[in-house]
Amino acid sequence: MEELIREMQACKILVDKALNEYLPDENLYPSEIFKAMRYSIFAGGKRIRPILVMKTAEMFGLSKEMVLPTACGIEMIHTYSLIHDDLPCMDDDDFRRGKPTCHKIFGEAIALLAGDALLTHAFLVISKNREIKGIDANAVLDVIERISKASGPLGMVSGQVVDILSEGKVIDEKLLYFMDDKKTAELIKGSLWAGARLAGADEKELERMDNFGEKIGLIFQITDDILDVEGDEKAIGKPVGSDIKNKKNTFINVFGIKQSKDIIGSLAQEAKKLLLDFKNNEFLIKLVDFLINRTH
Amino acid sequence: MEELIREMQACKILVDKALNEYLPDENLYPSEIFKAMRYSIFAGGKRIRPILVMKTAEMFGLSKEMVLPTACGIEMIHTYSLIHDDLPCMDDDDFRRGKPTCHKIFGEAIALLAGDALLTHAFLVISKNREIKGIDANAVLDVIERISKASGPLGMVSGQVVDILSEGKVIDEKLLYFMDDKKTAELIKGSLWAGARLAGADEKELERMDNFGEKIGLIFQITDDILDVEGDEKAIGKPVGSDIKNKKNTFINVFGIKQSKDIIGSLAQEAKKLLLDFKNNEFLIKLVDFLINRTH
Repeated sequence: MEELIREMQACKILVDKALNEYLPDENLYPSEIFKAMRYSIFAGGKRIRPILVMKTAEMFGLSKEMVLPTACGIEMIHTYSLIHDDLPCMDDDDFRRGKPTCHKIFGEAIALLAGDALLTHAFLVISKNREIKGIDANAVLDVIERISKASGPLGMVSGQVVDILSEGKVIDEKLLYFMDDKKTAELIKGSLWAGARLAGADEKELERMDNFGEKIGLIFQITDDILDVEGDEKAIGKPVGSDIKNKKNTFINVFGIKQSKDIIGSLAQEAKKLLLDFKNNEFLIKLVDFLINRTH
Repeated sequence: MEELIREMQACKILVDKALNEYLPDENLYPSEIFKAMRYSIFAGGKRIRPILVMKTAEMFGLSKEMVLPTACGIEMIHTYSLIHDDLPCMDDDDFRRGKPTCHKIFGEAIALLAGDALLTHAFLVISKNREIKGIDANAVLDVIERISKASGPLGMVSGQVVDILSEGKVIDEKLLYFMDDKKTAELIKGSLWAGARLAGADEKELERMDNFGEKIGLIFQITDDILDVEGDEKAIGKPVGSDIKNKKNTFINVFGIKQSKDIIGSLAQEAKKLLLDFKNNEFLIKLVDFLINRTH
């Protein structure tokens, strides 16, 4: 596990440096928007999605550096979704990762626009992946299609819609899986798919990574649900029990804690099995355990 | 002028049909988001930006149909910007084009998400332009880069930021031009540029279209400012004087009505001159007069 964490840290350093380069300078006019974008991007994210892009590309034979623009674009999309999700008309959250949310610092209008800006800028940054020698223009367009689908109305946004509209209502297991697949797993699947596609993986390999992404995406969300109940406030950086306060539907209130943990266990086994045929699969297989055991 | 309006109408029919095909079915689950997206897209827009994409492509030798995905994607971006601009934390407008704004019908959360969804989906739709035979993948990536730049933090979003932050403050002429160039002209420039690029225009021609776009973008915005004072409430579909109510900086309060009209006159002459060397320039030249004389 120590080796895994060292490798994640090495990836994070690369990503943070590239994000700094790809984001507009905060001294440009009007600086408020650039400051707000940077505030949320550098508010302590774990860079899970960029790491997935990079390590999947590496597993299929491409260096991590060659997919950095796509990795950064996906992190911008993830960050935009958090900023908008925290707004008063959505979850109305004051803290994230132990820091005040974007609108608490910059006001609602600038936070809304910072989210819009990150989402839009993400596609500019992803399209720049074609400038890296050895990357095919059609592969970059495939990634843009896939990521816009994963994060748009047929993906992440529809998960957010169900999340908001089902607050305080009882939902069944099928709808819970639908919501979490869209809200969380889609962009994780997209990250794995993007890394594989840029590295030239074939149809069968892409499908395999998609299935793997579905499992770890759900693991990620269920762990979030558990941490909201059992987590340490300092570690997760926001009040414990916020899902209950916001009357959110989670794996906890649909399945209970024990069964949720059992589901994670099964998903983890299935996920690892999917990667057994691949060479250089050690990192991603170990990552499954990391995702289960994470404390924030 | 009658011929121009007939041609605009023909383009609009093509665009509306394509938008209907490119937007997800509103019977999909969760239908609220798809209904909200469609409500705002089909709320009576003039389709100026798609028409610019199509007629510019045509001027450079490509059929209108061949750039429809890009034309539709840009209209989705324009529509997202209106939905977010109308939100309570922004301009807090209840009416647009004579109809209740998106959040008045669907609530703030769904309106926010419908804007996000249209912006994200736009890049999926634009990337589909490569599926049309004769369109080069690198040209499509160029368009994605250009449109994300035009509508992101270095473009439209920064115009919105200045618009919001300068409410109720006195701004100078230079800042007014900066704001309107970013807020309005950037996406209009991008539309012309996209049509020209997809049709294979050369560097010099692209630059010429950019300059033309800057002029007509400003004409468009100044005319909006004038209509807010002199327009007919029924024709413009929202209360006259809303800029004054919202303490907005416009060409009217910086230059006065008479000088604003003089500026439009000069811009129109300069704009038309830029197109004189091109064949098949009739439509775009006539469009300049249409933009000056529009009543909504």
